Amino acid sequence: DKITGEVNKTDVWSVFSPLAGHVPKDSLNLGQGFMNWKPPQFVLDAHTEVLQRVETNHYQLPRGNARLRKALSKYLSPSFKLGRELDPNTEVQVTAGANEGMYAFAAAFLRPGDEVIVFEPYFDQYQGIISFNGGKPVYVPIRAPEGASTGNVQASEWKVDLDEFKAAITPKTKMVFINTPHNPIGKVYQEDELRAIGKICEEHDLLICADEVYDCLTFEGKEHVRIAALDDFWKRTVTVGSAGKTFASTGWRVGWTVGPPNLIQPLLAAHTRIVFSCNGPAQEAIAIGVEQAFENGFFADQIKAYEERKQVLLEGLDKLGLPYTIPEGAYFVLVNTSRLEIPSDFEIPDLIKGRARDWVVAWFVAQTAKVVLIPPTDFYSREHWSLGENWIRVAFCKDTDTLRQASERLLALK
Amino acid sequence: DKITGEVNKTDVWSVFSPLAGHVPKDSLNLGQGFMNWKPPQFVLDAHTEVLQRVETNHYQLPRGNARLRKALSKYLSPSFKLGRELDPNTEVQVTAGANEGMYAFAAAFLRPGDEVIVFEPYFDQYQGIISFNGGKPVYVPIRAPEGASTGNVQASEWKVDLDEFKAAITPKTKMVFINTPHNPIGKVYQEDELRAIGKICEEHDLLICADEVYDCLTFEGKEHVRIAALDDFWKRTVTVGSAGKTFASTGWRVGWTVGPPNLIQPLLAAHTRIVFSCNGPAQEAIAIGVEQAFENGFFADQIKAYEERKQVLLEGLDKLGLPYTIPEGAYFVLVNTSRLEIPSDFEIPDLIKGRARDWVVAWFVAQTAKVVLIPPTDFYSREHWSLGENWIRVAFCKDTDTLRQASERLLALK
Ligand SMILES: CSCCC(=O)C(=O)O
Ligand SMILES: CSCCC(=O)C(=O)O
Repeated sequence: DKITGEVNKTDVWSVFSPLAGHVPKDSLNLGQGFMNWKPPQFVLDAHTEVLQRVETNHYQLPRGNARLRKALSKYLSPSFKLGRELDPNTEVQVTAGANEGMYAFAAAFLRPGDEVIVFEPYFDQYQGIISFNGGKPVYVPIRAPEGASTGNVQASEWKVDLDEFKAAITPKTKMVFINTPHNPIGKVYQEDELRAIGKICEEHDLLICADEVYDCLTFEGKEHVRIAALDDFWKRTVTVGSAGKTFASTGWRVGWTVGPPNLIQPLLAAHTRIVFSCNGPAQEAIAIGVEQAFENGFFADQIKAYEERKQVLLEGLDKLGLPYTIPEGAYFVLVNTSRLEIPSDFEIPDLIKGRARDWVVAWFVAQTAKVVLIPPTDFYSREHWSLGENWIRVAFCKDTDTLRQASERLLALK
Repeated sequence: DKITGEVNKTDVWSVFSPLAGHVPKDSLNLGQGFMNWKPPQFVLDAHTEVLQRVETNHYQLPRGNARLRKALSKYLSPSFKLGRELDPNTEVQVTAGANEGMYAFAAAFLRPGDEVIVFEPYFDQYQGIISFNGGKPVYVPIRAPEGASTGNVQASEWKVDLDEFKAAITPKTKMVFINTPHNPIGKVYQEDELRAIGKICEEHDLLICADEVYDCLTFEGKEHVRIAALDDFWKRTVTVGSAGKTFASTGWRVGWTVGPPNLIQPLLAAHTRIVFSCNGPAQEAIAIGVEQAFENGFFADQIKAYEERKQVLLEGLDKLGLPYTIPEGAYFVLVNTSRLEIPSDFEIPDLIKGRARDWVVAWFVAQTAKVVLIPPTDFYSREHWSLGENWIRVAFCKDTDTLRQASERLLALK
């Protein structure tokens, strides 16, 4: 049941959030993926300025603020490789965060009993997004490469097994959720993998929800490839993006979806019912932000800053001596905890009883080292907890001082 | 089908919005219900200030910003008459606008095939909110009093026929949507009516979604009564409120739901899947706004200003000479157009073909008088268009100059 199923669950984001009061107040938070800095000054300035306008403070069109849709079209068009600009009126839709974009997509296209393929680990919200809309998630693991729990590996070595994927498809399968750059693995799917996955979707006439909220964050020159930009996949794909990730404004709840008019139109109908429209001042500020970021080199600078943060964290993890997966995109590192010993007398509170080992590890780390991390089994279906329970997710969307300090603290685990 | 049903419909809000480009650009807009002024300066100042904080710009708890929930508890508690304060942690939930609050309520509690009683005219979003969540709206008219199309009547004279209400209930009925103060009638339900409706809900064990987004706007001393505050109805009612209406910030998308923990908890679960969390800076600014409004008399001043706006509009309508319903709350007036003649050679564009007479009237008014009004048949089920097609809705959430000018322009219709 969609209600009882969800209600009795204590959310990983609430348990492992200093805001909620479970973990020690003086913890350093490398848990939930948000930055410990403000949105860039030019975006904040724009926001402050637009608050003084009348219309910006009132209902926007359900489709989204026109200036934002135009700016997004210009900014996003090259990576969709359509050989033309995206149409801001029919192919770009603003949503109340990327999350609501995915929810609206599911609301628009799922019918009771439809199955949805989800590659796991998956961003935990997918499960509820699908089930609240009457769908049934069907999980296909992204398999870690051999040796991932004993030594460092590249995120790209984690792979979807295409045979497992094909075997999971039934006549009820309606769509596939795919996430690249990947949270929590840090994997940036490469062209050949995306093409193989897309071809299978094509053969079975499946829709694709491409969660690309970290598209602006890839490392060491790795190129983000959009599945919608390959072959003929555009016509079956809705791509989801996030201002929160793009402009360090996760609390503003501005996201977008891009796709062909025949997919965006039903999504718009759903979106209109769900939230009617999105926050006006934030939309206008992000519009100005996108326009200015073209000119002022913000995106490249941001990647450079993240490269440094990643480097600081990985050096800290090297000192800790636990193996990890080297991320190529997004802002998370999966660390393998198989070798971490939890003292047998360590007390486990009721709050995390019945969870997999990673919850105990995350709780132990929070109490012992005062660092908040995210246990990833909530990103796995119950039957595949074993694939996640020896990992822990560390976020590096935090300033280098915090990352250095947290790395120091983690040495308490040695 | 939920998709095809919605997609081919051109929304009343889009057709009759100067933003969308269908009506003349130089029209005065007394259509969609938003203000042509900014949120109050103390709320804008708060918003500007909180943009400079780090955490405010990032994910808030799904339940909502703690300061806002606390301020709302304090502000709302007296009118719920529980003899105690509302619990901000379990009985108050922040939503992405009142609309998303209603959507989350429907998502949490409706199962495919469930029926939902809707008193019509109804805020048009209810229909999609219910049907996207698998429910079936069942419409019960609020009947205009005799003489409403020939002379002015009080909004309170429009009544739900309780026998029609009872007759509409079936074993599949799950919940009732009730709206007070009422959009578009301006009716403020009185205690005896609410009690009678609540008793019927009790007998049939129905949930109540009380859309009270205009609760801060009642006129001539009329008291807003919450159905949740009567008898034992609290335990089956979720009450929905709106910062957009309370602080002239319809574009900020901050709303709230109030109810017993066993109803708010599933709603929170749905809300978390739908949007995860709401805009952080707007929530914090509204929290400060609520706190300060207690002290600075804002709510009383706001009512006084609306009384004046209403007066200006009603005087204009008196000159026009069409009968209307005198509103007791909210910011709309229903004007009867039976006596308005549309020239037989007036050209009707494709955009409004197939609609009821009120769409033609609204189009005619927009072209002839350059005033945008809302045709209310979208607030009626198809079978009851006849109840709405001789009315037009005029909004008075506009400054008095605009209302005076619009009244002048409307004289062109005489
Ligand atoms: C709903 S949590 C959002 C943050 C996030 O994307 C993550 O930490 O995985
Ligand atoms: C979705 S339109 C919102 C404005 C409003 O409440 C109205 O004009 O009726």
